[in-house]
Amino acid sequence: MANICIGEQEFFKGIGQVKYEGTETDNRFAYRWYDADKVVAGKAMKDHLRFAVAYWHSFCGNGADPFGAPTHVFPWDKRADAVERAKDKMDAAFEFITKMDLPFYCFHDVDVVDYTNDVTENDRRLQIMVDYAKQKQQASGVKLLWGTANLFSNPRYMNGAATNPDFHVLAHAGAQVKAALDATIALGGENYVFWGGREGYMSLLNTNMKREQEHLAKFLHTAKDYARRNGFKGTFFIEPKPCEPTKHQYDYDAATVLGFLQKYDLINDFKLNLEVNHATLAGHTFQHELQVAADAGLLGSIDANRGDLQNGWDTDQFPNDINEVTEYMLIILKAGGFQGGGINFDAKIRRNSTDREDLFDAHIGGVDVFARALITADNILQKSDYNKVRQDRYASFDSGSGKDFEQGKLSLEDLRQYAIDNGEPATTSGRQEYLENVINRYI
Amino acid sequence: MANICIGEQEFFKGIGQVKYEGTETDNRFAYRWYDADKVVAGKAMKDHLRFAVAYWHSFCGNGADPFGAPTHVFPWDKRADAVERAKDKMDAAFEFITKMDLPFYCFHDVDVVDYTNDVTENDRRLQIMVDYAKQKQQASGVKLLWGTANLFSNPRYMNGAATNPDFHVLAHAGAQVKAALDATIALGGENYVFWGGREGYMSLLNTNMKREQEHLAKFLHTAKDYARRNGFKGTFFIEPKPCEPTKHQYDYDAATVLGFLQKYDLINDFKLNLEVNHATLAGHTFQHELQVAADAGLLGSIDANRGDLQNGWDTDQFPNDINEVTEYMLIILKAGGFQGGGINFDAKIRRNSTDREDLFDAHIGGVDVFARALITADNILQKSDYNKVRQDRYASFDSGSGKDFEQGKLSLEDLRQYAIDNGEPATTSGRQEYLENVINRYI
Amino acid sequence: MANICIGEQEFFKGIGQVKYEGTETDNRFAYRWYDADKVVAGKAMKDHLRFAVAYWHSFCGNGADPFGAPTHVFPWDKRADAVERAKDKMDAAFEFITKMDLPFYCFHDVDVVDYTNDVTENDRRLQIMVDYAKQKQQASGVKLLWGTANLFSNPRYMNGAATNPDFHVLAHAGAQVKAALDATIALGGENYVFWGGREGYMSLLNTNMKREQEHLAKFLHTAKDYARRNGFKGTFFIEPKPCEPTKHQYDYDAATVLGFLQKYDLINDFKLNLEVNHATLAGHTFQHELQVAADAGLLGSIDANRGDLQNGWDTDQFPNDINEVTEYMLIILKAGGFQGGGINFDAKIRRNSTDREDLFDAHIGGVDVFARALITADNILQKSDYNKVRQDRYASFDSGSGKDFEQGKLSLEDLRQYAIDNGEPATTSGRQEYLENVINRYI
Amino acid sequence: MANICIGEQEFFKGIGQVKYEGTETDNRFAYRWYDADKVVAGKAMKDHLRFAVAYWHSFCGNGADPFGAPTHVFPWDKRADAVERAKDKMDAAFEFITKMDLPFYCFHDVDVVDYTNDVTENDRRLQIMVDYAKQKQQASGVKLLWGTANLFSNPRYMNGAATNPDFHVLAHAGAQVKAALDATIALGGENYVFWGGREGYMSLLNTNMKREQEHLAKFLHTAKDYARRNGFKGTFFIEPKPCEPTKHQYDYDAATVLGFLQKYDLINDFKLNLEVNHATLAGHTFQHELQVAADAGLLGSIDANRGDLQNGWDTDQFPNDINEVTEYMLIILKAGGFQGGGINFDAKIRRNSTDREDLFDAHIGGVDVFARALITADNILQKSDYNKVRQDRYASFDSGSGKDFEQGKLSLEDLRQYAIDNGEPATTSGRQEYLENVINRYI
Repeated sequence: MANICIGEQEFFKGIGQVKYEGTETDNRFAYRWYDADKVVAGKAMKDHLRFAVAYWHSFCGNGADPFGAPTHVFPWDKRADAVERAKDKMDAAFEFITKMDLPFYCFHDVDVVDYTNDVTENDRRLQIMVDYAKQKQQASGVKLLWGTANLFSNPRYMNGAATNPDFHVLAHAGAQVKAALDATIALGGENYVFWGGREGYMSLLNTNMKREQEHLAKFLHTAKDYARRNGFKGTFFIEPKPCEPTKHQYDYDAATVLGFLQKYDLINDFKLNLEVNHATLAGHTFQHELQVAADAGLLGSIDANRGDLQNGWDTDQFPNDINEVTEYMLIILKAGGFQGGGINFDAKIRRNSTDREDLFDAHIGGVDVFARALITADNILQKSDYNKVRQDRYASFDSGSGKDFEQGKLSLEDLRQYAIDNGEPATTSGRQEYLENVINRYI
Repeated sequence: MANICIGEQEFFKGIGQVKYEGTETDNRFAYRWYDADKVVAGKAMKDHLRFAVAYWHSFCGNGADPFGAPTHVFPWDKRADAVERAKDKMDAAFEFITKMDLPFYCFHDVDVVDYTNDVTENDRRLQIMVDYAKQKQQASGVKLLWGTANLFSNPRYMNGAATNPDFHVLAHAGAQVKAALDATIALGGENYVFWGGREGYMSLLNTNMKREQEHLAKFLHTAKDYARRNGFKGTFFIEPKPCEPTKHQYDYDAATVLGFLQKYDLINDFKLNLEVNHATLAGHTFQHELQVAADAGLLGSIDANRGDLQNGWDTDQFPNDINEVTEYMLIILKAGGFQGGGINFDAKIRRNSTDREDLFDAHIGGVDVFARALITADNILQKSDYNKVRQDRYASFDSGSGKDFEQGKLSLEDLRQYAIDNGEPATTSGRQEYLENVINRYI
Repeated sequence: MANICIGEQEFFKGIGQVKYEGTETDNRFAYRWYDADKVVAGKAMKDHLRFAVAYWHSFCGNGADPFGAPTHVFPWDKRADAVERAKDKMDAAFEFITKMDLPFYCFHDVDVVDYTNDVTENDRRLQIMVDYAKQKQQASGVKLLWGTANLFSNPRYMNGAATNPDFHVLAHAGAQVKAALDATIALGGENYVFWGGREGYMSLLNTNMKREQEHLAKFLHTAKDYARRNGFKGTFFIEPKPCEPTKHQYDYDAATVLGFLQKYDLINDFKLNLEVNHATLAGHTFQHELQVAADAGLLGSIDANRGDLQNGWDTDQFPNDINEVTEYMLIILKAGGFQGGGINFDAKIRRNSTDREDLFDAHIGGVDVFARALITADNILQKSDYNKVRQDRYASFDSGSGKDFEQGKLSLEDLRQYAIDNGEPATTSGRQEYLENVINRYI
Repeated sequence: MANICIGEQEFFKGIGQVKYEGTETDNRFAYRWYDADKVVAGKAMKDHLRFAVAYWHSFCGNGADPFGAPTHVFPWDKRADAVERAKDKMDAAFEFITKMDLPFYCFHDVDVVDYTNDVTENDRRLQIMVDYAKQKQQASGVKLLWGTANLFSNPRYMNGAATNPDFHVLAHAGAQVKAALDATIALGGENYVFWGGREGYMSLLNTNMKREQEHLAKFLHTAKDYARRNGFKGTFFIEPKPCEPTKHQYDYDAATVLGFLQKYDLINDFKLNLEVNHATLAGHTFQHELQVAADAGLLGSIDANRGDLQNGWDTDQFPNDINEVTEYMLIILKAGGFQGGGINFDAKIRRNSTDREDLFDAHIGGVDVFARALITADNILQKSDYNKVRQDRYASFDSGSGKDFEQGKLSLEDLRQYAIDNGEPATTSGRQEYLENVINRYI
């Protein structure tokens, strides 16, 4: 590792390179299912899965919660100077990512280096870190899956950023996005994400929802135009979330975002970055959100984590349920994979997971469950009648009157006549339990 | 009442006309707040509120639940012949509605008369009842707010109606909608509603969501074209609901439906019929759903009830919370009222509310809480600074750079420059607690 | 099968005996993991798992839901005479249970034969069916895991059974329980269950909760005393559920029931029958409920199913998540298994699962996931450091001051002095992610 | 105010004394319903309601949330020295409480003064502040409703305090509780509260729930014994909460706590402090929790706030729903009021409520809604048939066989005979809608 570190410290000393060692290994720090170069469903696992490490949780998340002070004390967080501290953090990040042998990382501007309230000072700091990151990327081969700007943590955004009732705040959001776009472009970031953590309302009583949504749309147009003018070729993502920190967030879920993009003429420029825990907070399975995006041709990327369905907030735990993740991979495979994005572990170790090893365990578990799910889903699609059972259900629309209906040739009178002519339809089972068993047969 | 009944029975004998008696009355069967002709906010209460009685709950709902047999035994449900039985039920319905002095009713086809699996026999039965209803309407002055077809109760719809994988079933749905549209037109129904109780999925594993949604859109086009060709001048409504009986219903919530209507070129022909309990099942306040529809100019009508937020199904209780209903009325008043529709009590008395009087109590409570809320909301808008506080929040966009931004004149660079030039913005309170107090001051 | 059927019909004709054929089988109607006689963790799988088929769902559940009529049409439900019909149903039940090669069944009184409102006629009917069941049990070797009385479906129980405000209704509940106890005793039932579907309230406004709970306790004492006097040697179970059909059910969850049993001196006579979907409706994982019962020494039996955490009612789906069920089995194994009970599939095929085969698929899936989970859990306990990691966390209480504290030897002053003497404690990781990985390593 | 301030600053300058000015006032800073000395239901409002201001939210809560930095910048938080800063905060607190004319306050140890990791230094700081508070209390007449120790914010408690697997941490909890008890006794605190924010688990996988609960019980005994030995005459409260920050908290809800207190022989020494938002997080109405506590004779005190039922965390908003609060007051009045406690506003202004005035608005709204609810509930009990309707429902148990049953004189055979002798019971309505209307009639 030492050769890719510009800095001198080894922050995860004693933990070696994580490798694939196959299903029988007892090694705590090995992949059992993930073999980066193994070909599954026509391409290498690493090209299906495109894992990314999330800077904010893994290198900034200090374990604090609304009821308690930080528990994770980072050795890279000690230096007094903001930029020096940021470089240590970046050293730690690249050490971790390369020890995990993962290909991508993602960041918010303020993850990389602490921001002040001075726009030009922030830009200066970020520029230094972009230069530093370029060297790290080059040395390690790790790439930037996406960049983004944090428009929710600074107190000025308490009433929203692009949807703030005060234009002055919106202007600051614009300044931040400009710098984050510049950084993403400079680092060859493949995508850029908008997650609007405060773009919503705390109370409808004080909110002009229509005007705020129009501002949001205008802001997205403005940002997109800037990025394209400045050479950004990647994909823009919107990341839906229904609430938290707001009471209601405008990018509620995939369907809501699709309607918004369509209404404001953004549908050809933005795709979706879906997060598991955001789906469940919105009352959906993640499978549902994936399917909605896939059906619209806008399945861009995912934030892989899991929520706790008995608790009502974003617990951001690492994924571990093999049944669920297999169902995700079925949809992703059938959709032809991600459009531009990958699988970002937007997940955090628990407040009381305070050993350095815990971060490795967590990522290894997450990587492995996706790898196993990929193999399982491929088996289901190749070996079982899963697809056939699904297709056969709709056979009546593939020809005859059903096809005529699809083609708009039938009136309501025609439908009535068909019903009369053909009497009561036969009863057809949905065979849900059978299909559930098919999944389990291949796990 | 006898003079408006064509049938001879008085089903609610002993209960006289419900009247407005003002706030001090102790009469159990009197309105305290609702005075049909009292002018509030520029027009008569009855023209703001346009109450309707729901045929299905009030005259068909027998108190059964998934764990128990019917508890409500209706005297109008005794005759062996389906049409005779249907006439008794209609007599009871008009007796109740006129005793309550309410202006509208709403029905599904199968509420009015029992259906068989024979399309032509169903059409015959419905035609007889349409003729009967015409007489009742004429005699009483009661009008049809909206009609609809029940495409969820018949076993054939277990996999969906317009979204059924079997075209044969879809054809039956077409036959039913045709007859329900004919009936609605014949009775001068002011609107027609689509609620797709089975238009969704039980499991994504066996579902082609995209194809099903395309079928749904085609079906709505087909129905709309038929109705317009046959002289229907009223409004079409889609009624969102997120789930139940399905796991996921395509018309999930207002935003989802708006996206769907837009995508499938139905946005100019359909408006929304919003239901309180459907909003809460979707994780929204009803205020939110009202605002979404109002902002789109598509606030058509509402189904007034309430859910139990500690229980996760559609409890369809009568509305009774004065704080909440006042917030509804604020939005409705500011939106200029309903577009075509009114306030339909899609609510049912409890399984164990087995006295005839309970049906009166329930409706009186529901009517009164809306009437009181209307008066309160009007006071808030007239007398308080509620509107001013809201508008002042957005003043920065009414002129200067904020206005420029709204007009698309600013680039991301301009926003950044503004931020630099103007430094850190002032902190501005959202004043949520103050506005909540304003509501309570006028209750 | 014909030799164990007293009746002549084969209701599941064409479906042969389900057997264990190992993990590689493609046979839809075979167990891949469940081998009844295979020894795991010291005893045969069948003795760990003690599967039971639920009469109500599998042979009475007609697919109706609050929004639709029945979809499952049973061939055994055709005869006009109630007792003849009941015998056909019992033939079908024993045919199914023996084809599945499962050891137990469970029933409510009204599942076995239709009840009237005449107590003596009901007793006569049940007596005939008990005699018939005795023959079936003897011929097949199938046994009764538990019996119970349905005190929620009859309209008379709409305000509760043992908690009904009307003593007259409570007396009918007593009559029903007496007959159900007699039947359970006669059939050698190993346990008797109380699930109080209406023992709770619809509204606190009309409820004297304290008096109702006292009645419930008195009723349980009365029933228990009767059963013991009449030779019942089995276990009594209370089955917690938080709500549905009531707004609030008194037997809310395991902890609530334990408090109730203790308060009313029933703790030595009743154990718990826990249901997965009831746990999730109460906001708990099923693992939690199992642990609560196990810690009290009262883990009697389970109703195996799963809920839909995105929908808020009792969906009663068959279990299929291998991660979750493995965690159940870990707790069950560590608790030493069930006290008297087993694993009853209180689960139903979907409304649209209308093929005969669906019932087999559903049970095979459920049986297999538990069998696999048993094997996995045993491996975890035998081969991993799962137990050691857990035990080591509490080592500080195994000796020294920690042990003194457990033994009540330390005062608050002593604790303070210890804190001062020993300074700030070291930080100790909870290692949650590691333990989650251990589970997945053995699946 | 100046005369009660030992410190010199007036932190809420410009806001005068809040007084009762009756229902017609337009004064933003006046009570419309709360008149401290007005007699309702036999005693002064202030003696029914016993309002307390919560130190932590109102004077320490800085508006931070998991997604953002603090937004509330307090002028009393500026001085470098911890004790000087603490005195400024206390000056502000007493200024606010007296300007609001409220009788009580509540605190955690660390609210009053910042704690270090040094036990003796903490004790020294707290002692100084106790002396200071004594002077403030004497000067103002404001009293301490209850004190408590914060055993959840310090990182050492990340795995629990009294339930921590490490005895060393438990010892620190003991040290903190000792000091907090000493302070409460010294200040004449009327009660002492235990809220176990970390007493539960993050994952069952690493938890020995039984052993942890035994430690909790032992800890409570130890604390209680110390307090009694040292002259504490007040009441101990347990405050239930189901989760957050933990996944599962052992003091889940009222029923769970009652079972725990009974099992561990603490039932005669502890009562309940119930919080509205904790009830709703547990899936209960607050009315339910109140009734459970009242039925056990242990309704000690309440934390008045409200949750957001569409969001799944503790939003701690100020109460404002008149329908709900009226139902609370009905139960509280019927229970004879609180046992030792009062109404503590454990509620916080929103993150974006950044004006000084917002804190006044919030408390005024909360005080007024309780005052109005008290008046309304008293009217319902005095003037309506609310109590009679409830009592009449249970009349069958007041004499005859029903009474015999209550007295344990009837066997199961007797119940059966009664059912046969008396045939099918009459159907009796629960009249829920009527009772709901009664509430609204008096609002």
